[in-house]
Amino acid sequence: MSDDNLINEFRQQALDYHAHPVPGKIEVALTKPANSAKDLALAYSPGVAEPVREIAQSADNVYKYTAKGNMVAVISNGTAILGLGNLGPLASKPVMEGKALLFKRFAGLDSIDIEVKHRTIDEFVDTVANISDTFGGINLEDIKAPDCFEIEKRLIERCDVPVFHDDQHGTAIVTAAGMLNALELQGKELKEATIVCLGAGAAAIACMELLIKCGAMREKIYMLDRKGVIHTRRDDLNEYKALFANNTDKRTLEDVIEGADLFLGVSGPDLLPADALKLMADKPVVFACSNPDPEIKPELAYQVRDDLIMGTGRSDYPNQVNNVLCFPFIFRGALDVRASEINDEMKLAAVEAIRQLAKEEVPEAVLHAAGVESLSFGNDYIIPKPMDPRLLPRVAKAVALAAVESGVARIELPESYMV
Amino acid sequence: MSDDNLINEFRQQALDYHAHPVPGKIEVALTKPANSAKDLALAYSPGVAEPVREIAQSADNVYKYTAKGNMVAVISNGTAILGLGNLGPLASKPVMEGKALLFKRFAGLDSIDIEVKHRTIDEFVDTVANISDTFGGINLEDIKAPDCFEIEKRLIERCDVPVFHDDQHGTAIVTAAGMLNALELQGKELKEATIVCLGAGAAAIACMELLIKCGAMREKIYMLDRKGVIHTRRDDLNEYKALFANNTDKRTLEDVIEGADLFLGVSGPDLLPADALKLMADKPVVFACSNPDPEIKPELAYQVRDDLIMGTGRSDYPNQVNNVLCFPFIFRGALDVRASEINDEMKLAAVEAIRQLAKEEVPEAVLHAAGVESLSFGNDYIIPKPMDPRLLPRVAKAVALAAVESGVARIELPESYMV
Repeated sequence: MSDDNLINEFRQQALDYHAHPVPGKIEVALTKPANSAKDLALAYSPGVAEPVREIAQSADNVYKYTAKGNMVAVISNGTAILGLGNLGPLASKPVMEGKALLFKRFAGLDSIDIEVKHRTIDEFVDTVANISDTFGGINLEDIKAPDCFEIEKRLIERCDVPVFHDDQHGTAIVTAAGMLNALELQGKELKEATIVCLGAGAAAIACMELLIKCGAMREKIYMLDRKGVIHTRRDDLNEYKALFANNTDKRTLEDVIEGADLFLGVSGPDLLPADALKLMADKPVVFACSNPDPEIKPELAYQVRDDLIMGTGRSDYPNQVNNVLCFPFIFRGALDVRASEINDEMKLAAVEAIRQLAKEEVPEAVLHAAGVESLSFGNDYIIPKPMDPRLLPRVAKAVALAAVESGVARIELPESYMV
Repeated sequence: MSDDNLINEFRQQALDYHAHPVPGKIEVALTKPANSAKDLALAYSPGVAEPVREIAQSADNVYKYTAKGNMVAVISNGTAILGLGNLGPLASKPVMEGKALLFKRFAGLDSIDIEVKHRTIDEFVDTVANISDTFGGINLEDIKAPDCFEIEKRLIERCDVPVFHDDQHGTAIVTAAGMLNALELQGKELKEATIVCLGAGAAAIACMELLIKCGAMREKIYMLDRKGVIHTRRDDLNEYKALFANNTDKRTLEDVIEGADLFLGVSGPDLLPADALKLMADKPVVFACSNPDPEIKPELAYQVRDDLIMGTGRSDYPNQVNNVLCFPFIFRGALDVRASEINDEMKLAAVEAIRQLAKEEVPEAVLHAAGVESLSFGNDYIIPKPMDPRLLPRVAKAVALAAVESGVARIELPESYMV
């Protein structure tokens, strides 16, 4: 088959997958018997009055008698759907259901999508805050920058449960884990690295903020938006980009990439020319995360220089930067200790747990699922594979422990974590 | 065991049922495979972009590629939880999950609870309207009167999907079905009946409004609240009660019940004295629906007079008025033809379908589930049993047909309804 035919076949498969045998990807199931009249008398009137009274007496009982503690809402307004842009809340529904599917598949978390239409940011925040007690945690998704920053900040303040914008922090955590491992392999230190970040959206800003928390120096970061380098003389920057305004005379990608150690692309296809790549320092690290078409194709990048370590967003190249390595498990850990928020300590613990896992021997089942004969820590394996079943216990435990140690956990580490 | 011990044992069973083996009653399950990397590529990136594009092109495709069309939100603010009062949104969660369980159990509808905290009615309406596109329908629950009337009215205007306050209309539909059958057995016509309604909350008002649509005369209705008969000289009536202000000199229950044909109690335990019952007309119909303790105990009522037909809210007496006879099926029918609302025609069709079913021969399985040897249309069997599997096809089809005929259906009757 031609490439076009293959693409058309995949598209049709994707539509069929969503449409048959029932529309969509999730359903609601019962965890309790509901067959006899007695069952129904316990589940609903009159029996249900008992847990109602218990919760009215002590709000914490809601975790004992309802599904809240294992339930994550995936909430979007559809203003930045995947790479497709602002298509509105309704069109975002398949993505949000897909995220719910991943939560269940990877971490056993029950997850339901909520699509929000709204006029103002205030209205979005009010809407989500008003329904937030329903859930054990809230995963924000596909909300455009810079709105997403203010929305997340305000929701964290207003909600009693963890609020986490995965496009920012999930991406940042996996990116940081991979980059730190790549730099280690290249024999470089993050605090000495010159960093170029092509793209200045939600993911870009979150990645750079997290790298700084991992030790990167803000003044060694050059961020570029559509207009070029973000520098201190620009007067068109929102407050979030302004934090990355570099006091520099450099203006173009070519200007800043010369001598850079680390490149992160969260922009668009083929925006890193091979000639620019040549200008980077020895032993560079290049993460070209635009999806499905990276900022530079790995085969081209390796043609240009053989001393790089490269990551992409794609599953068909080594070192896939995939949020699914993080978000199911960070929520699992947070919910299991009823963390009031997902704080920096928990994010950094997730980074470390993901990094560490890539350095360990890979079980046969993971190799099989990845369709490879061997995987060992090195240039082509700096991040664990998405199907690695060790991610759940490792990352969730690291996150839960960090929540306990940083004082945001409301209950002790569950016994199942003690193993 | 003593009664107290039995009650305590039931309470403990209800708490255990809710707490074990997992907290709560519902979970999210996957309807599509999510095992291989290929599965995930179809369910999420990059495959999910296809249904996103299809929905962006035509909003109707959301029913083809997502779970929306089978998903009902059960939404409450916890201001009138069962008979327990205003205990807040969090405490209402077990009831809302219970309702979700009933939707699934009886009609195969996926249903998720949403508890809303809010300051004003405006804020509640905005919140629910903003998330309404997520769902195929919205079931409002346990919202206090008179707020519930305004809330429902405004949400019906603003939402693209059916909005139905079950405490009003579900109760009204089942009550009307039972009362019409009872009056038929007593040889009386609704339009000639003098009606006493003890209670003036959401259910009472909805029941009377629906009875009027079935033929009852508004001027023959006497509604009573805590202050007695609602009459035209009172100046303390909200606009909803005011519709039932009767131009009468009668002031007390005893005043109005004399010669009445039909009594509906949606008030509190033992509020209909036996002496008052004696004053009713020949062959009266008495629905004492306060739960768990009716306005008059059936054994007492039958002691006082043997010419009555009686219904209650309890499963351990004949003629249980139970919303579950209606709400799963009215939503099933409405969603199956994508009705834009649940209008009067659909409600009246549900009344007729429920009435009719009580007149038919009862299958063995229903008798078995009800624990009785026989059931036939008569004083002790005027309403179908909740476990009757014929309710689903009958009521849903009647409702769907009424939606099509009244012009609120957006698609034709599904083939499965043609049988």
